[in-house]
Amino acid sequence: MGGTDIERLIALLARLPGLGPRSARRAALALLRQPQARMLPLAQAMEQAARSVRTCSSCGNLDTHDPCTICADPGRDRGLVCVVETVGDLWALERAGVHRGVYQVLGGTLSALAGMGPDDLNVASLLARIEQGGVREIILALGATVDGATTAHWLQDRLAAFDVPVSRVGQGVPMGGALDVLDDGTLAAALMARRPA
Amino acid sequence: MGGTDIERLIALLARLPGLGPRSARRAALALLRQPQARMLPLAQAMEQAARSVRTCSSCGNLDTHDPCTICADPGRDRGLVCVVETVGDLWALERAGVHRGVYQVLGGTLSALAGMGPDDLNVASLLARIEQGGVREIILALGATVDGATTAHWLQDRLAAFDVPVSRVGQGVPMGGALDVLDDGTLAAALMARRPA
Repeated sequence: MGGTDIERLIALLARLPGLGPRSARRAALALLRQPQARMLPLAQAMEQAARSVRTCSSCGNLDTHDPCTICADPGRDRGLVCVVETVGDLWALERAGVHRGVYQVLGGTLSALAGMGPDDLNVASLLARIEQGGVREIILALGATVDGATTAHWLQDRLAAFDVPVSRVGQGVPMGGALDVLDDGTLAAALMARRPA
Repeated sequence: MGGTDIERLIALLARLPGLGPRSARRAALALLRQPQARMLPLAQAMEQAARSVRTCSSCGNLDTHDPCTICADPGRDRGLVCVVETVGDLWALERAGVHRGVYQVLGGTLSALAGMGPDDLNVASLLARIEQGGVREIILALGATVDGATTAHWLQDRLAAFDVPVSRVGQGVPMGGALDVLDDGTLAAALMARRPA
């Protein structure tokens, strides 16, 4: 495959999520064809990002600043905290542009299988924010999975000690979704969540 | 999305073949979570590969040496030259371990649409090798596409001036392939290439 440097590059690329051995070779080849124009800029962007990435001590977001851009933004409503599992979930909500408050990134869910217990979740900084006052509502935006539901219940218990209303994102038929391709669980949730038309 | 460094990393990753915006974000997130353990090693592997990659002046392969590992290998048969379109095709044949000779990487095919003419193909070093003597057979392993077939015909014309036999790889039903899922062109080629059982 042409040199240990090239093999090592392919092996490291193949470990990225979404890339298998085949697509890692394709990606490596594209980079090798333009070492100056494509490979070096990407290598430098990675070094730069690796050096500058910080975990926000307030919400757990990944950013180049601590507190992160969202927590530092005076235009965001600090009283409205949306709790998500991962930074990827936060990014998805930001792309949708549907949340004008701030976030709390748990860093995962409670999971017996993955060995994630309450101490592994980033909750302390949320409790500290509530105790400082000013938090008016906490929105749980966790996945509609068993672990997501378990985590939501556990969090509701923890938050019951504070006088802050806790809500959960709605469940049902996704926008643009045809009913006949949905699973039974989603259909059941959609019927349960019915509203007057 | 958390800092221009992170956005730049995602934008560069999204330009890799096989990665779209969505998988680029997933890959970036995986790297950002482990800047020291994952992102820096990949960045350094890229810098190293970008510095060391060479185009083999003999065959056109990409390697960290010139001549490449294959051309320099005394165990390879220099008399048997397999002509391929791209380095990716060379890698595929090497993985299969089915060619014990050397290669010639054209760097593409003749293509009116892509603006690729005869001068854009890496053919001169093949002609030079033939003129030096010792080449006993040239195997054309080009894609079974219109451009691949055009290029094969053009190469056969160019090579007709030399006293070297030129062959082409067989066409037909791929191994493990069921006939009812194959396209008409492959079925026609398979019937044309029939042999006594």
